[in-house]
Amino acid sequence: MKKLVECVPNFSEGRRPEVIAEILGAIRETVGVQILDCSSDASHNRSVITFLGGPDEVKRAAFQAAARAKDLIDLTAHRGEHPRMGAVDVIPFVPVEGISMEECVELARQLGSEIAAKLDIPVYLYEAAATRPERKNLADVRRGEFEGLRETIGLEEKMPDFGPARVHPTAGAVAVGARPPLIAYNVNLATSDLGIAKKIAKSIRGSSGGYPSIKALGVILDDRNIAQVSINVCNFREVSLPRVFETVKREAERCGVNVTGSEIVGLVPQEALVDAAEYYLRLENFNKDQVLENRLK
Amino acid sequence: MKKLVECVPNFSEGRRPEVIAEILGAIRETVGVQILDCSSDASHNRSVITFLGGPDEVKRAAFQAAARAKDLIDLTAHRGEHPRMGAVDVIPFVPVEGISMEECVELARQLGSEIAAKLDIPVYLYEAAATRPERKNLADVRRGEFEGLRETIGLEEKMPDFGPARVHPTAGAVAVGARPPLIAYNVNLATSDLGIAKKIAKSIRGSSGGYPSIKALGVILDDRNIAQVSINVCNFREVSLPRVFETVKREAERCGVNVTGSEIVGLVPQEALVDAAEYYLRLENFNKDQVLENRLK
Repeated sequence: MKKLVECVPNFSEGRRPEVIAEILGAIRETVGVQILDCSSDASHNRSVITFLGGPDEVKRAAFQAAARAKDLIDLTAHRGEHPRMGAVDVIPFVPVEGISMEECVELARQLGSEIAAKLDIPVYLYEAAATRPERKNLADVRRGEFEGLRETIGLEEKMPDFGPARVHPTAGAVAVGARPPLIAYNVNLATSDLGIAKKIAKSIRGSSGGYPSIKALGVILDDRNIAQVSINVCNFREVSLPRVFETVKREAERCGVNVTGSEIVGLVPQEALVDAAEYYLRLENFNKDQVLENRLK
Repeated sequence: MKKLVECVPNFSEGRRPEVIAEILGAIRETVGVQILDCSSDASHNRSVITFLGGPDEVKRAAFQAAARAKDLIDLTAHRGEHPRMGAVDVIPFVPVEGISMEECVELARQLGSEIAAKLDIPVYLYEAAATRPERKNLADVRRGEFEGLRETIGLEEKMPDFGPARVHPTAGAVAVGARPPLIAYNVNLATSDLGIAKKIAKSIRGSSGGYPSIKALGVILDDRNIAQVSINVCNFREVSLPRVFETVKREAERCGVNVTGSEIVGLVPQEALVDAAEYYLRLENFNKDQVLENRLK
């Protein structure tokens, strides 16, 4: 089976389309790589590009994109709502087909080493590629952001995994890692009470004792005047969409509130939806080779 | 988008593997056609081949297979449990991607006309391709089988859509048609009472006032000593898997019996599973382009 890896680099630029176009161009130059998605957010001043291909091609394209970002983005002039520490801020590899997490960790190490050597940018390995437990969580790696890291990078606990023990003056530092596919999943509540959404979010997320692979916030959807539990399902093989949905439903019920529906934002692996069908239909002995479309290769 | 049609011809031979191998070979000769599945049943004395490709290629392969079956299978010597009227008994075209039901009906007409002209076999159009309402249902078209049809084919109501008004002496007659994908779906009950499975089957199937696109039987699974509702979901866009499952669950509950699980036999279109996820997760605004694998083309 052909090996397929997804790469989802985040860049600290969400306002100048011409810069994003140049970075996309650098990715496209690599034959065998396919760009699936690019979304820019002006208030975050950040862009997320999703692309896919064989491991070598994806690694090469990721390096080219990082090199362009280094040339085009100056963090000393960057302002935005989203925390960031680098021009290319984070580069995760995601196993999609015929490839293990371990191989993606190895890809992250190779790319990290190359970025440090050729671009002179310090690199932190995170998530499955982390070399220390306290670097698994990206938020912990990025704490202090670009400005703070300039002060602290000399400390032992802030030593980069590759590259110089000083932040690049304009391009900062970058986190490179490997992780399962992340699903952005929101559950809508039949209430405009933000407190209830926050209470439910707190009960399911790992940081407050819920599922370790779940991140969640309570928000208000202004246009519909309803509260929403906004969720990152960070490992759907560990905690699946139906388990998240049923947990939110049960917690909402305790608060006397109905769940009106849910939504998946962006891409979702077929397996996560098939899981949901298996869960609710109580499918026995189902094999993904039974999916007609999976025979078409 | 590339047009993809599935073809699922049934042949009246399930005991001589060398005959099936020859028919498979005739299909394989057509470049651009992919064989997905072949299952033979000795007691039915019948084989079902599933293959896929562009409309012209699939039509050509179906004709070649019909021609080989005519040469190799003699219905005067055929015995089996499954009703049949022809060496190649039925040839349905199923729209898979980028092609409408109407185009599949046109394919069925073209193939039917070619089989009649070149193989001298009478052809009945059925399901979406039927030219009379009483020919939509395959069981009605095939009533009397090979032996009976030899007597009745001269009657006005039995006039074939193409070809001679007499049954081919050894190859019989064939039904050619177009239909949605059929899903073989079984629901298992926590009882060994066959009567309950039969009662539930009766309540959901079209022939006794249930869903028109559902066929169902009650059976006993000897190896597990449980009763099962064995179902053909003939149009999952009309009546979906979750609707069937929930209806069976409700009917079982009325009988004081639990549903232990369900199973999909053979192939299932991805859309039918995504439907189940949408139904139970109450997904809003979901688009099948959000499925990662669907971006890989």
